[in-house]
Amino acid sequence: MFYVDPNLQHPVRVETPDPLFARALQQAIGGVEGEIRVAMQYFFQACGARGNDARYRQLLMNTAAEELGHIEMLATAVALNLEGAPLSLQEEAAADPVGGAVLGGINLKNLLSTGLAAMPVDSDGVPFDMSHIYASGNLAADMMANATAESSGRVLAVRLYNMTTDPGMRDMLSFLIARDAMHQNQWLAVIEELGGMPNVFPIPNSFPQDQEKTEFSYAFLGFQRDGSEPVQGRWSEGESLDGKGTFEPRHMEPLGEEPALDPARPESGAQTEQM
Amino acid sequence: MFYVDPNLQHPVRVETPDPLFARALQQAIGGVEGEIRVAMQYFFQACGARGNDARYRQLLMNTAAEELGHIEMLATAVALNLEGAPLSLQEEAAADPVGGAVLGGINLKNLLSTGLAAMPVDSDGVPFDMSHIYASGNLAADMMANATAESSGRVLAVRLYNMTTDPGMRDMLSFLIARDAMHQNQWLAVIEELGGMPNVFPIPNSFPQDQEKTEFSYAFLGFQRDGSEPVQGRWSEGESLDGKGTFEPRHMEPLGEEPALDPARPESGAQTEQM
Amino acid sequence: MFYVDPNLQHPVRVETPDPLFARALQQAIGGVEGEIRVAMQYFFQACGARGNDARYRQLLMNTAAEELGHIEMLATAVALNLEGAPLSLQEEAAADPVGGAVLGGINLKNLLSTGLAAMPVDSDGVPFDMSHIYASGNLAADMMANATAESSGRVLAVRLYNMTTDPGMRDMLSFLIARDAMHQNQWLAVIEELGGMPNVFPIPNSFPQDQEKTEFSYAFLGFQRDGSEPVQGRWSEGESLDGKGTFEPRHMEPLGEEPALDPARPESGAQTEQM
Amino acid sequence: MFYVDPNLQHPVRVETPDPLFARALQQAIGGVEGEIRVAMQYFFQACGARGNDARYRQLLMNTAAEELGHIEMLATAVALNLEGAPLSLQEEAAADPVGGAVLGGINLKNLLSTGLAAMPVDSDGVPFDMSHIYASGNLAADMMANATAESSGRVLAVRLYNMTTDPGMRDMLSFLIARDAMHQNQWLAVIEELGGMPNVFPIPNSFPQDQEKTEFSYAFLGFQRDGSEPVQGRWSEGESLDGKGTFEPRHMEPLGEEPALDPARPESGAQTEQM
Amino acid sequence: MFYVDPNLQHPVRVETPDPLFARALQQAIGGVEGEIRVAMQYFFQACGARGNDARYRQLLMNTAAEELGHIEMLATAVALNLEGAPLSLQEEAAADPVGGAVLGGINLKNLLSTGLAAMPVDSDGVPFDMSHIYASGNLAADMMANATAESSGRVLAVRLYNMTTDPGMRDMLSFLIARDAMHQNQWLAVIEELGGMPNVFPIPNSFPQDQEKTEFSYAFLGFQRDGSEPVQGRWSEGESLDGKGTFEPRHMEPLGEEPALDPARPESGAQTEQM
Amino acid sequence: MFYVDPNLQHPVRVETPDPLFARALQQAIGGVEGEIRVAMQYFFQACGARGNDARYRQLLMNTAAEELGHIEMLATAVALNLEGAPLSLQEEAAADPVGGAVLGGINLKNLLSTGLAAMPVDSDGVPFDMSHIYASGNLAADMMANATAESSGRVLAVRLYNMTTDPGMRDMLSFLIARDAMHQNQWLAVIEELGGMPNVFPIPNSFPQDQEKTEFSYAFLGFQRDGSEPVQGRWSEGESLDGKGTFEPRHMEPLGEEPALDPARPESGAQTEQM
Repeated sequence: MFYVDPNLQHPVRVETPDPLFARALQQAIGGVEGEIRVAMQYFFQACGARGNDARYRQLLMNTAAEELGHIEMLATAVALNLEGAPLSLQEEAAADPVGGAVLGGINLKNLLSTGLAAMPVDSDGVPFDMSHIYASGNLAADMMANATAESSGRVLAVRLYNMTTDPGMRDMLSFLIARDAMHQNQWLAVIEELGGMPNVFPIPNSFPQDQEKTEFSYAFLGFQRDGSEPVQGRWSEGESLDGKGTFEPRHMEPLGEEPALDPARPESGAQTEQM
Repeated sequence: MFYVDPNLQHPVRVETPDPLFARALQQAIGGVEGEIRVAMQYFFQACGARGNDARYRQLLMNTAAEELGHIEMLATAVALNLEGAPLSLQEEAAADPVGGAVLGGINLKNLLSTGLAAMPVDSDGVPFDMSHIYASGNLAADMMANATAESSGRVLAVRLYNMTTDPGMRDMLSFLIARDAMHQNQWLAVIEELGGMPNVFPIPNSFPQDQEKTEFSYAFLGFQRDGSEPVQGRWSEGESLDGKGTFEPRHMEPLGEEPALDPARPESGAQTEQM
Repeated sequence: MFYVDPNLQHPVRVETPDPLFARALQQAIGGVEGEIRVAMQYFFQACGARGNDARYRQLLMNTAAEELGHIEMLATAVALNLEGAPLSLQEEAAADPVGGAVLGGINLKNLLSTGLAAMPVDSDGVPFDMSHIYASGNLAADMMANATAESSGRVLAVRLYNMTTDPGMRDMLSFLIARDAMHQNQWLAVIEELGGMPNVFPIPNSFPQDQEKTEFSYAFLGFQRDGSEPVQGRWSEGESLDGKGTFEPRHMEPLGEEPALDPARPESGAQTEQM
Repeated sequence: MFYVDPNLQHPVRVETPDPLFARALQQAIGGVEGEIRVAMQYFFQACGARGNDARYRQLLMNTAAEELGHIEMLATAVALNLEGAPLSLQEEAAADPVGGAVLGGINLKNLLSTGLAAMPVDSDGVPFDMSHIYASGNLAADMMANATAESSGRVLAVRLYNMTTDPGMRDMLSFLIARDAMHQNQWLAVIEELGGMPNVFPIPNSFPQDQEKTEFSYAFLGFQRDGSEPVQGRWSEGESLDGKGTFEPRHMEPLGEEPALDPARPESGAQTEQM
Repeated sequence: MFYVDPNLQHPVRVETPDPLFARALQQAIGGVEGEIRVAMQYFFQACGARGNDARYRQLLMNTAAEELGHIEMLATAVALNLEGAPLSLQEEAAADPVGGAVLGGINLKNLLSTGLAAMPVDSDGVPFDMSHIYASGNLAADMMANATAESSGRVLAVRLYNMTTDPGMRDMLSFLIARDAMHQNQWLAVIEELGGMPNVFPIPNSFPQDQEKTEFSYAFLGFQRDGSEPVQGRWSEGESLDGKGTFEPRHMEPLGEEPALDPARPESGAQTEQM
Repeated sequence: MFYVDPNLQHPVRVETPDPLFARALQQAIGGVEGEIRVAMQYFFQACGARGNDARYRQLLMNTAAEELGHIEMLATAVALNLEGAPLSLQEEAAADPVGGAVLGGINLKNLLSTGLAAMPVDSDGVPFDMSHIYASGNLAADMMANATAESSGRVLAVRLYNMTTDPGMRDMLSFLIARDAMHQNQWLAVIEELGGMPNVFPIPNSFPQDQEKTEFSYAFLGFQRDGSEPVQGRWSEGESLDGKGTFEPRHMEPLGEEPALDPARPESGAQTEQM
């Protein structure tokens, strides 16, 4: 269950409104690397958490609450950056030549659909779609997904930081960048708590590996057209990261045959020639 | 550039066609954990690979080629499982009572749109959408995304394996499960090659951390309504996983104020009362 | 900013788990009439609220917090209804004949992608897409959208209530139905506070109506092929609901001409015959 | 059944083609507030109309026909505004500096995919998706949805009107704004015909309210973190708008417990630690 | 501009309502091969028609009107097939065992979101998305797209015809199948009127072929891994279908080099190792 | 099964990087006319190929391999065009005034989500969605779909060619334009091999035409509101293209009645007035 406080988690200040930067910030709200994604991902992982250790449900829901506050901060930042944007071609023309490109450069829906406010869309106006909420029912797979989401989230926040010189925006982003650092560490900490790589991998660790084709479990297969060795590296030699095998390179040849399906059936809507 | 061989990477055999299992297999083709996703993800990461070490482009494209072959195997498996499915309510009624539920239980598009073949959709008929191709331009974030994709992919393959008793299908899936184990290890190996967690994290490692709000970089913030301590664990004490800080728990209070936007502008299509 | 309480807003109890009902409940989570929609809609309306009366931001965010708790309740209900669902065709076959149809009837992603938990998808497995978040920047349009969302939400909750006889599920739904009744009234109350229909409509009330083609502002136009009168009712006679005009029926004839575009330009990729 | 007339419902004239305004107009075609939405929404509501009063089917289909004509008008307006747009970077460079921003500011698909014509996409090029067609089977919920659609439609048309100074475009938009005013009134008139708010609400009015948890049906619940009163207004005191209760404010405390799901099952693809 | 007639283009009769067949019919409404697609495709092609011959605009809009009537017929058929479907698990249990599978087999949104009516979704409940409206601005490409759409549309209608034995439904479908036959011919007739294949192809015929790499314009390139000849047929020998070249088979070897992008830039959010 | 060669099928060279042209090129990657579409379409058609002639599977998979190489070429071209794009507003301001519009004109996700590389999205940043993969199970319908895809693909390539003057880009595009010419011919050649139009049409040719309503199979029906003749052409007179009938024009009058559905059922969530 959720409660609200009318204040923001961290101050949001814009010294020089910049409608184009508002568009860029939308990526951090409704992009696949954005805050809606992590908020909802942790939320749904929490709701489906199974296992004897009830702490993970709380940990996930606790961080979901924080991320909701981050969406709120970013949405406020978008609205503040849009203040002063031209509403018409006249307004645009009246502004300086540089401003003359504003209307073409913003996400028009931020003007036409919301009247200068944030939307749950990315920087090109594409709405966020909830298929990006990964909640697999496997705790370790989810932690990997979460650390990944925070990685791409921090990459995005850094790009936004580098894109602007507004002190208020940099202040807000330096906070979000720090939180993403913490969250990367936080989810990796769960993996360590679960025993670290050798215990956690391969995910899921509940499948008896003797039921898989073990001759392919640690083989680095090459698919070079000319049969040459595929490119070598840590992945082609030494102990595997899960500690359960040894990498070895191998060129791949087909093990199966050319597939042959039955002819089309008379009532199946195919051409007569296929039957 | 790509070349083909008409044979399959691994044999695909179905002893007892099962149209419902065909529907389940669709998740491994067009689901967000499926093979189109990894094939295209590695492909686009390869195409955008920047850096002095050209091996990563080749490694990625090499594995993309393998995954394309996996889509082919699974699509063949779907078509084989659909052979014999009823095309009409009459056919269904003529079959045994158990078969009587087949038409309702399959993905109807596998019949109506393809004439009993595979589609790039998930197990509920939702088409795969390419926003799931993560190619961030950050090598480490991509490796995390890839290890994650192989983790959820192996979880899915295990669920499919457990769902069927068909020896041919189990044979195919035990091969795919093995490959997912390898690929999890493979992408983690790149992270190790890059120096392992302390060098790689926080991602991106190119951002000077003194520009972030470091007092929040390793703080485990609590958002419990009653101000109680959030749930403790490895994430709330000890050295952070990136080796650059120490976890500490802290209850969070708002640092910002209630946001206040400007009133709506006269020409912005708002109600008069908002202006 | 958001805080959490580990307890649910209202008890969620399932006496007889029913995987098919779990699928139906998904519509109330990720359907366009569902709880993600209202939670996010109120959230984004709050973030973009402009005007001198700051109460609306708080009212919206307050209700957003409640709706987040409703998603949590429903997601818990889905997970509880899925407990005991068959994971394999063998399990299904071992169950009674009625149970034999379970695997075909459930949303397979609830099994394959989440391991028997809720997802942000509708009852047919289609992910929720955030384009359904209406936050127009016009307070009255938003209140209409909200009252509409609560109307379709309550229709859905009633259908779900009528679909089940499980006492726990009916208890939960009777709570949600009551809340939807309140929320319908709540948003209509804002419209009343703003002066009611005559002051609020037509939305937006800030556009000077003498700039619109007033001869068409209250005309009920008929498009019957045979030129007959269109169907009569309250909409074709009497004072308009906004109190600013009088309805009158009229058959419509084209006022414009057949459109004529320029020929295709030489470099535009058209056929030569179009140029 | 539908018939066509080659002439437009209302003249469409563009004095000064403006490719950026063409992009903005796309929102009125394929945006969620656009004309495809209302045309198809009334169409599907008509097709599913149930009840003893057959007039509603005709009313809905009649207005669907009008809205199809509006799409046609807007699509013509888009094509006319695109005439003269640069097809190449050379053409752009040859134009004046202001024109130099045209190619970047237009929706490139209007050039690359259609050769300077309209598409069923919004102002950022996102295709319209039919999940926005609300046809609930509940007449009152549909009327609310329709009045809402016409409200956001008129807000959008006003924003477009304010964005341009082209006399032809303003003439067309002042017609569409008038029609949206009528249509808002038209759908509200059906609600009045059905007895007005006290008879119509809460929607659906066919559910016996004594089966809902009536102590929550008119309670304005507060979710402030500090337990303070939520913001007061018409929604927190006085008779409810449906005339069936009295608003009362109340702070909310959890009524349920912390949810506890069963551990993961052995074959469900979870980690061993969750079982 | 559009007009309506309250009667249907062709009778729609259902003798034995079948909710599962209602689900199948949804594919003909909102599937990518369905009637919304052709109606809107012809509509948008008409709106963007450029060229000296104004007949094509009228031809397209005329057929768009017919297709709108087909959606209406099919939506009526869906609603009639859903009459009598169980609304609850009790109703279902009270029916015969075969009926016992109905709720699991139908598209639940047809019940939960519409109250037993049609929706603009496909047979698996996926909403139609307007990106399938092909209107290229090239008349010949559009005619090919239209003939293709009618081909897949007739394949679908045949599959539906074969799936049912209801005399009313077969009567309706035999009409639609006939119309699809006509429409395939109709669009091919335009290609003939434009001069047939040798004049129309390659599309667009306005591009001077001497600007393309003509040595590859009629070469059948082989991509067999082992360098063997690709499979031979009409496509590998004889005059090309556009009459402008001669097919010749050839094994393909790479003409380009391994791509090399610049290293990542310092501020681009990549890992340090990539710079 | 697939193999790779690290070299490109054809050289990709960019003399003057142009970030706006990179955005345009995205349409050829992830647009509905783009290369992902054809690669995956041929791939899935191959996987589902049924019939006695196994050559079609190989032909399709062979060309799928080529198209994968085209995606690779285009993705390389996008990355090369993005090199030098401004990463910040400062960089942009430091450039010349024309460059000053760059950030607003590019697809921001190409910067924010990928760090200056290609994505599987179209020129407006909309991700490709796999519902565009047409694989109908009917060989002739698929060949029509393929010839159509290559037609719109070549139209797009020509528009891109005309948009740029960069010699490297024109060189690459003139190769792709040539390949599209071949592929149009290639798929039409299959139709000829199958007997040409009179044998192939109407698709599917396996449905006995005496079961369709033949009086409508070759009738050109008119839907003009005033009952006038619809526009005449090759489609209204002479032998049909499939050689099986004679075109004849006819004005259409409704053959059916006004549809009448049952009233809403008591538990269906409708308003009481509908029951």
